[in-house]
Amino acid sequence: MAKTNPGRFFEDYSVGDVIRHAVPRTVSGGERALYHALYPARHALYSSDEFARGCGLPSSPLDDLAAFHVVFGKTVPDVSLNALANLGYAEGRWLTPVYPGDTLRSTSEVIGLKQNSNGKSGVVWVRTKGENQRGETVMEYVRWVMVRKRDPEAAAPETRMPDLKPALDAGDLVIPEGLDFTDYDFTLAGEPHRWGDYEVGEVIDHVDGVTVEEAEHMMATRLWQNTAKVHFDATLREDGNRLIYGGHVISMARTLSFNGLANAQMIVGLNAGAHANPCYSGDTIKAWSAVLDKAETPAPGVGALRLRLVATKGGEPFTLRGEDGKYLPHVLLDLDYWALIPL
Amino acid sequence: MAKTNPGRFFEDYSVGDVIRHAVPRTVSGGERALYHALYPARHALYSSDEFARGCGLPSSPLDDLAAFHVVFGKTVPDVSLNALANLGYAEGRWLTPVYPGDTLRSTSEVIGLKQNSNGKSGVVWVRTKGENQRGETVMEYVRWVMVRKRDPEAAAPETRMPDLKPALDAGDLVIPEGLDFTDYDFTLAGEPHRWGDYEVGEVIDHVDGVTVEEAEHMMATRLWQNTAKVHFDATLREDGNRLIYGGHVISMARTLSFNGLANAQMIVGLNAGAHANPCYSGDTIKAWSAVLDKAETPAPGVGALRLRLVATKGGEPFTLRGEDGKYLPHVLLDLDYWALIPL
Amino acid sequence: MAKTNPGRFFEDYSVGDVIRHAVPRTVSGGERALYHALYPARHALYSSDEFARGCGLPSSPLDDLAAFHVVFGKTVPDVSLNALANLGYAEGRWLTPVYPGDTLRSTSEVIGLKQNSNGKSGVVWVRTKGENQRGETVMEYVRWVMVRKRDPEAAAPETRMPDLKPALDAGDLVIPEGLDFTDYDFTLAGEPHRWGDYEVGEVIDHVDGVTVEEAEHMMATRLWQNTAKVHFDATLREDGNRLIYGGHVISMARTLSFNGLANAQMIVGLNAGAHANPCYSGDTIKAWSAVLDKAETPAPGVGALRLRLVATKGGEPFTLRGEDGKYLPHVLLDLDYWALIPL
Repeated sequence: MAKTNPGRFFEDYSVGDVIRHAVPRTVSGGERALYHALYPARHALYSSDEFARGCGLPSSPLDDLAAFHVVFGKTVPDVSLNALANLGYAEGRWLTPVYPGDTLRSTSEVIGLKQNSNGKSGVVWVRTKGENQRGETVMEYVRWVMVRKRDPEAAAPETRMPDLKPALDAGDLVIPEGLDFTDYDFTLAGEPHRWGDYEVGEVIDHVDGVTVEEAEHMMATRLWQNTAKVHFDATLREDGNRLIYGGHVISMARTLSFNGLANAQMIVGLNAGAHANPCYSGDTIKAWSAVLDKAETPAPGVGALRLRLVATKGGEPFTLRGEDGKYLPHVLLDLDYWALIPL
Repeated sequence: MAKTNPGRFFEDYSVGDVIRHAVPRTVSGGERALYHALYPARHALYSSDEFARGCGLPSSPLDDLAAFHVVFGKTVPDVSLNALANLGYAEGRWLTPVYPGDTLRSTSEVIGLKQNSNGKSGVVWVRTKGENQRGETVMEYVRWVMVRKRDPEAAAPETRMPDLKPALDAGDLVIPEGLDFTDYDFTLAGEPHRWGDYEVGEVIDHVDGVTVEEAEHMMATRLWQNTAKVHFDATLREDGNRLIYGGHVISMARTLSFNGLANAQMIVGLNAGAHANPCYSGDTIKAWSAVLDKAETPAPGVGALRLRLVATKGGEPFTLRGEDGKYLPHVLLDLDYWALIPL
Repeated sequence: MAKTNPGRFFEDYSVGDVIRHAVPRTVSGGERALYHALYPARHALYSSDEFARGCGLPSSPLDDLAAFHVVFGKTVPDVSLNALANLGYAEGRWLTPVYPGDTLRSTSEVIGLKQNSNGKSGVVWVRTKGENQRGETVMEYVRWVMVRKRDPEAAAPETRMPDLKPALDAGDLVIPEGLDFTDYDFTLAGEPHRWGDYEVGEVIDHVDGVTVEEAEHMMATRLWQNTAKVHFDATLREDGNRLIYGGHVISMARTLSFNGLANAQMIVGLNAGAHANPCYSGDTIKAWSAVLDKAETPAPGVGALRLRLVATKGGEPFTLRGEDGKYLPHVLLDLDYWALIPL
C-alpha cells in the first residue's frame, strides 16, 4: 500500500520547491489524429502540413491545446490529486510549437501558498513549464488549486501570493519563428475574416453544439495521461457520472469556435481561465466568444486577438454571470486567451 | 453572428460554379489506426505494408473509404449544411491511392440544379474531386442533395440535370500503378476465394453484426471533419439520438463484408448509393452483398467485381424493397461499387 | 454463404497442424496513441523515446501487451471463433520489442487435444508465435480453449496433453538486446521503488478504478482485429451487453498497476492467466498485485519480478477464491507474469 502515490497535501508544498513531473511523452501523428477524432478541430494550420508550410512553419504542429494538455497532465499526480478545486490560470504562453516526434516533460515551481481560514485546506500556486527533448520550453503557465491538508492541525505556512498579470500584454507574446501570414489562403482556411474585421467588444455565437459522451472524455483525458480518478471511476458519485476533465471542455469550446474564428489559428497566450461549473456526460457543449483586445505583432501579416471563450451547456449565449456576480449555472468555462490571426 | 457559416441555400448555387472547399488535411498512421479501431477493417492490403508491397504498391494505402470520407467531409460546409436529404452518388472513381503523409483537399463543381415542385427546396448535383499535395486527383464522385431555399419566393433556376452513367463500365476503372496480384498470398489475406469463384447473381451473407455507439460514430465523423450538427447535438431530436453519418454505415458494412469478400481488396468505382433509412446509436448493423457484374482488367492477375453492398439493422438478409418498391425499414444502405480481386 | 468463415470445430484440429493466421498488420504511432487513449498507460519506457534511449533501446517500443493483442487477435478466426471458453495461458515470452513500422503476423501450432467427457466439445492447445517483417519471433505463448464439435458423433481424437511449465524460470526470460537500467531516471519514471524494495509475498492495492464503456472496449478489440462477435453484437444477449474481450481487462489492470509498480517496465514472461469472470460495460475495474518471485538477470541494472496481477469489479482487494476454491464473483482476471525492473 505504501508504494502507491497518495498525492501531495497542502503541507507538502514550500515556496521555491521545483517538482520534476514523471512520465515524459513522445507525440506522433497518432495524437494528432485522435485530437481530430475527439474534437471538431478544423483550424487549417493544425490540419495540413502544406497549409502550415504556406505560413512559414516546417510542418503542421500538434494543436496548441493538445500540447497544453500533455504538459498539464503530467502535473496532476503531483499538484492536483488531492485538489478540491482548480481555481485559475494566468501568464500562460506558448513558446515553441510541438511537432510529431517531439518528447515533452513538465516541471513545476511552487510560487505561492495561502492556507484557507478554515484551516483544512489551502491554495497552492505553481508555475509549470513544458520542455521538449532539446530542452526548449514549449509552454509555461501559472495554475492555482485548492488542496486539502493531510493534518488539519499542521501549522499554516507563511502566506505568499504571487504577483500575477491580470492579462499578458501583446508584447509578452512569443510568435513562432518563421510565422508569416502574408500569403495566407483564406479560402482553404474556411473563412474570409481577418484581424481588421474583428472589433473590440464584438461577440460571436459559434452556433454548433456537441453532446459529450463518457467514452470520449475518458479517452481524451487518458491520452494526456491525466490520472485524476474523478474522471474515470463511476462509483465515486451516486449518479455514476464521471466529472469531465476541464481541459476537455476547453478543447471542445475552442474547436467549436472555428465557426466564426477559423482564422484565429494559433493560441499564444492564456490570460485567465475559470471552470465555472462541472460538465458531465450528456451535456451539450456550445460556445461563444467576445473580442477583448487587439494588437499588432512584429511578424509579417500576423495580428493578435485577445478573446474571451465561453463554453455553456444550454442557456442563452452571451450571458455569463447572475446579479450576484456568480457564474450562471449553464456556464462551463470562461477562458481569456490571445490568438494569432492574419492581418 | 454574421461571421459564422450559415451554409449555402438552393439559390446560392449556379451550374458551373467551382467551390474550393476549406481545411486541407494531412493524414498519417494515426488516421489508419483509428480506422481500424472504429471499424472491423481486415483487408490485408490496408493492414500490412509488407502485403501491399507483395501486390506491387509502395506501402499500405489509407483505406479507400477513409480517403472518400476525408474528401467528402470537406464538402459538407459548402454542400450539405442545409441539406434535407443526401439523394445519391454516381461516377465515383478512385484514381490514386492515398498514403500516410499525403495532404488532401477537395473541390466541387455544380453540375446540375432542379427546383422541387413545392418551391421550397431543390436538388443540387456536384462533382467533387479530392486532390493530393502534388495536385493529383485521388478520387472523384458525383453526389446530389436536396437543399432548402433561403427564400421560398426566389425564382427557380433553369433546370439542368446532368447525364450520369447508371454504372461505370469496367473500362472506366483506374487500376493503381504497379498493382499486380500474380503473387497474391490468399492465406495471409484470409480467404481462398478468387475472381473465378464468384458468379454474377451470387449473394453472400456477411453474418457478423456490430452494435453502434454514439461515441464511435461521432469520433469517426469528426475524424473526417464532417461538421453537420445532426451528428453531434442530442438536443436536436426529442429522443436525444444523433443521426449517424451515412459514411459510418458505409464503412461498417464494407468492413463487415470482409467475411466472404476478404479478397475484394481495393474499391475503385462507386456506381450508386442510397442511404435507405436513418441509423441511430444502438442499431446493430449487418451486411450482405450480391455480385452484379464481373470484368477483367489490364493489370496482371487483377479482376474486378461489381458488388451490391447492403447494410441492415436486423431483418432478413437478401430482402431489400417492399411490394411498393420502397426500401424496407430495416435497410440502411444500398451501395453499388467495383472492387479489385485476384484472378 | 459458403464463402464466409464458419470457424474451426474441435474435429478440425490435429496435433502438429500449423496454422498461418491471416491479416498481417503494420503498426505505427497511431496504435501507440490509441493504446494511451484506451488505457491509463504511463510506464515511461512505452511513453517516451528519450526515456527508452536512456534504457539502451533505440526508441520507445509498442506496449508489450499491445504486441500480444495484435498477435492474439489474428488467431481468433482460426482458434476461438467457436470457443466456449478461453481456459488458460502458459509459457508466454516476449522475445523482441515491436516498434512503429513493424509488420506482425501470427502462426499457431496445435500441440494438444482432449475431447470432453460429454462428447460435445474438447480442449485444443496451441502454441502461437508472432513474427515481424524480418522473420524474428516477437513473442510466443501457449493458449488452450474449449471448442465445440461440429458433429457430436465424430470420433474422439487421441488425447494429447502438452507438458507445460507451471511458470517460466527466470533463466527462460529473454532480455531485449541493449537493455540497461544503470542510468534509470526514477523521478521521470514516476516512483522511487526498485527491485530491492519489493519482497516476495508483498501485496499492492493499485487503488484507482476505471469504469468501462462499450465504445472503448469495442474500439480496443477492433484495433487488434479480434473479430469474435460476442464483443460487438448486442443482439446476442438479452440485456444487450457485449462480453468484453479478456485482453481489454488485462491491459486495463496492467496500466492501473502503474500506481505502485511504475518501474515494472517491461513484460517478458506470461506464466499463467485466467479470465475468472466475464466483464461488461459499466463494471469498474480495479487491480491489485502480489509479488510471487524475484530474480536477477544478466542485463546491467535489470532485475525481474514475478507478479500476480488481479483485476476485480468491486469487492475487497486481496481476496481471490472462496472456500470452494473457486474464484469469487468480483474477480475478473488472475494473471501471472514476469516484468523487468531496475535493481
